[in-house]
Amino acid sequence: MIVNAHETATVDEGAIIGSGTNIWHYSHVRGTAVIGKNCNIGHCVYIDQNVKIGNAVKIGNKASIFQGVEIGNGCFIGPHVAFTNDKRPRSAGKWEIVRTTVMDGASIGANSTILCGVTLGSDCMVGSGSVVTRDVPQNALVYGNPAKVRGFVCSCGNDAEKSSNKGRNVAMKCVKCGKVFEIPEDVYLLCGD
Amino acid sequence: MIVNAHETATVDEGAIIGSGTNIWHYSHVRGTAVIGKNCNIGHCVYIDQNVKIGNAVKIGNKASIFQGVEIGNGCFIGPHVAFTNDKRPRSAGKWEIVRTTVMDGASIGANSTILCGVTLGSDCMVGSGSVVTRDVPQNALVYGNPAKVRGFVCSCGNDAEKSSNKGRNVAMKCVKCGKVFEIPEDVYLLCGD
Amino acid sequence: MIVNAHETATVDEGAIIGSGTNIWHYSHVRGTAVIGKNCNIGHCVYIDQNVKIGNAVKIGNKASIFQGVEIGNGCFIGPHVAFTNDKRPRSAGKWEIVRTTVMDGASIGANSTILCGVTLGSDCMVGSGSVVTRDVPQNALVYGNPAKVRGFVCSCGNDAEKSSNKGRNVAMKCVKCGKVFEIPEDVYLLCGD
Repeated sequence: MIVNAHETATVDEGAIIGSGTNIWHYSHVRGTAVIGKNCNIGHCVYIDQNVKIGNAVKIGNKASIFQGVEIGNGCFIGPHVAFTNDKRPRSAGKWEIVRTTVMDGASIGANSTILCGVTLGSDCMVGSGSVVTRDVPQNALVYGNPAKVRGFVCSCGNDAEKSSNKGRNVAMKCVKCGKVFEIPEDVYLLCGD
Repeated sequence: MIVNAHETATVDEGAIIGSGTNIWHYSHVRGTAVIGKNCNIGHCVYIDQNVKIGNAVKIGNKASIFQGVEIGNGCFIGPHVAFTNDKRPRSAGKWEIVRTTVMDGASIGANSTILCGVTLGSDCMVGSGSVVTRDVPQNALVYGNPAKVRGFVCSCGNDAEKSSNKGRNVAMKCVKCGKVFEIPEDVYLLCGD
Repeated sequence: MIVNAHETATVDEGAIIGSGTNIWHYSHVRGTAVIGKNCNIGHCVYIDQNVKIGNAVKIGNKASIFQGVEIGNGCFIGPHVAFTNDKRPRSAGKWEIVRTTVMDGASIGANSTILCGVTLGSDCMVGSGSVVTRDVPQNALVYGNPAKVRGFVCSCGNDAEKSSNKGRNVAMKCVKCGKVFEIPEDVYLLCGD
């Protein structure tokens, strides 16, 4: 396997890295990590053992992706983002990895912190500097410490507004690209909660 | 050009770096960056393409300065500070750089996050761990998530208090060094807002 | 002295590092730092001059420990944690180091920011993404920006609840391991403050 990694990066033997993926300076990928195709892994990034990352994922400088985290396709993980995998970390003692899932198309803004045990729904967007403490619904825009649902976004990244009711779903329409998609009504009602 | 960079740092060809500037371990400066004289660039710092940085700027460990950011003279950029340059980041699609300006003498505390599109006024101070979402007035002390104006500071870094009215300006006096300076009254009234 | 440091790490001459301590990739330990035995120092960590760190301490990726910080035994310093040592940082001018102490057994969650001049009490726990602006009592669980006391934790990391009054102390019992310990009543009353 030929890996497009800068000479200062460390890719441990056994890591599986798809074609077209670039790894930048001083990053470290552990030997049991699996990274898809056409990803971009920035400066000083850490990809831990057993981490799985999909295709076309961008990971910004200094993000740390720890064991127990799984990242889907087309995600954006901003610079300085810190995942976690232990709810009550201590230096000593036994320790159980708590899993975190980032669904396809999700974006996480710069310097956000993701507490473990949550799922970030598809095409959601976490604003920069947020602390995510619970699940983020699909297409939700969340931010703050703790992060709360503040609106909804299209897969293109722009705001989406309620277009109509569709039974127990709400049809949302992107204000920019016009795409229409549905979300469950109970998710829609989380906004501002 | 002789660059004072540690042997583990990467300074790409074409970067312009002033005399007396030091670059520490594992930092990466891209080839079209311009950095002034007598700066100190810490450990694992990233300076992106086309970034302009003035003279006598201190940049702490692991700060990331992205394309679209311009930093004036005498600024302090704390460790772990994350700038951004995309309001709605997605892995795919077109993308327009949003500019951020840090004026002369401004300080940004450790681990703060700066949303793009803002101006940090001269001699302002951003408290550590803040998330800056809007413009910071000159000499303002801001902190929190989102960062709000909590007071005013002198160029020496200490608190300044209202001394007198000067028409539509307010004269502020530093409680430590005694320096007097003026700020617009509407800026003064932002405090606590 | 034989140091277990990855070949990409930089350990300056004069640093004192105990047996069984590992230092990972791209980390930098300055020449007057003192680190105890059986510690684990992650990826891209920075340990500044004159820093003292006890035994069996885990320091996560990209944490920065600056001059003026002292860390006891058995502490957990999460990834991306930023300490500070200057209350009003400016690029220019004189500057006095403000000290910060982390007592034995304390844990600091990922991406937290610790303002200088505080003491983090023994066995306390700082939640991920917090900004610590004041002292943290022993065994307290704090989080948020600014971090506030939200509960109490056992040395094992799990929640502890009030068991009985003991004069001016409160006896706390761990809900998981059953350990009983005492904290001052005035500390107990800080919860929710």
